[in-house]
Amino acid sequence: MELLKNRILKDGKIFPGSIVKVDSFLNHQMDPVFMHELGKEFKRRFADIKPTKIITVEASGIGVALMVGLEFEIPVIFAKKQKTANMSTDAYLSNVKSYTRGTESVIAVSKEYLNSEDRAIIIDDFLAMGQAVLGLIDIVKQSGAYLGGVGIVIEKGFQDGGKQLRQQGIRLESLAIIKSIQDGKIVFD
Amino acid sequence: MELLKNRILKDGKIFPGSIVKVDSFLNHQMDPVFMHELGKEFKRRFADIKPTKIITVEASGIGVALMVGLEFEIPVIFAKKQKTANMSTDAYLSNVKSYTRGTESVIAVSKEYLNSEDRAIIIDDFLAMGQAVLGLIDIVKQSGAYLGGVGIVIEKGFQDGGKQLRQQGIRLESLAIIKSIQDGKIVFD
Repeated sequence: MELLKNRILKDGKIFPGSIVKVDSFLNHQMDPVFMHELGKEFKRRFADIKPTKIITVEASGIGVALMVGLEFEIPVIFAKKQKTANMSTDAYLSNVKSYTRGTESVIAVSKEYLNSEDRAIIIDDFLAMGQAVLGLIDIVKQSGAYLGGVGIVIEKGFQDGGKQLRQQGIRLESLAIIKSIQDGKIVFD
Repeated sequence: MELLKNRILKDGKIFPGSIVKVDSFLNHQMDPVFMHELGKEFKRRFADIKPTKIITVEASGIGVALMVGLEFEIPVIFAKKQKTANMSTDAYLSNVKSYTRGTESVIAVSKEYLNSEDRAIIIDDFLAMGQAVLGLIDIVKQSGAYLGGVGIVIEKGFQDGGKQLRQQGIRLESLAIIKSIQDGKIVFD
């Protein structure tokens, strides 16, 4: 998606360890009009799926997932990290490792909102090692829902997540794939 | 806002300790079309402020804040709970106590995205004791930005947050105020 690539080149910041920060428009500070365009693009790409639910994980996936849901006019579920006192124990659970933070957490989706009659699309802002998405796929499988595909705003092509998903035969739509970062410059696939 | 009150009566669930769960349309599962209507209502109420930034805190505030930002066509910043390795240390910080979870956390907003030229509106899904909002107000004050007001989807009128904000002279717009929960039924203000 050219609009996205241009925005990453314009506003993305590169840090040591191949870290790309898009804090100024996608996570932390969000540009809602721009994110609405991302939602429209995902709708165009996944229209054939006829999804009934959009699934993401808190916190930075919520914004773009909501825009996809707005376009499809269907509910958006965000998996919660660790269970809160307010949350029903009747939930699908999965373990997620974060390589960036060096932590492990449990993500949870209430069984009330996802079941075998649903057609789900998973949406997230970033795909690197793919741990969060694998956790969401696990939850969709537990629910018996049909998994129509995974939509990612920015895939880090030099990390293993995307490869792993494609090898499993999962339909993956990444709006921008960063192939490498060379001499402080982003190279897209 | 009648649309909201009706939705709370229809889909809200009441638990012991005056806990109202709106997990089916506002947090956890979100109804994007409905939340877009909340965004339009906040725009109507705060149009005179001419805001430049919407401020909220992860995770459950993000959805409605994004819809307000979409209507105003301005950026939305979500304060992050505790600093991550990816986040600049150049941030406004504030301490927030959670009475529901019995935890204390630090919320952070990067200094890059909020300064004294901004006109900020704080948006959140719930107002109970008001700790999260007080933390966000603290951050807006640190930045020197003008605070135009606070917009809340559901205020628990039987807890102290709203009273405290109004006593401080802060403009508070709550789309629904729950006065009490009697015999398992929600009474609005």
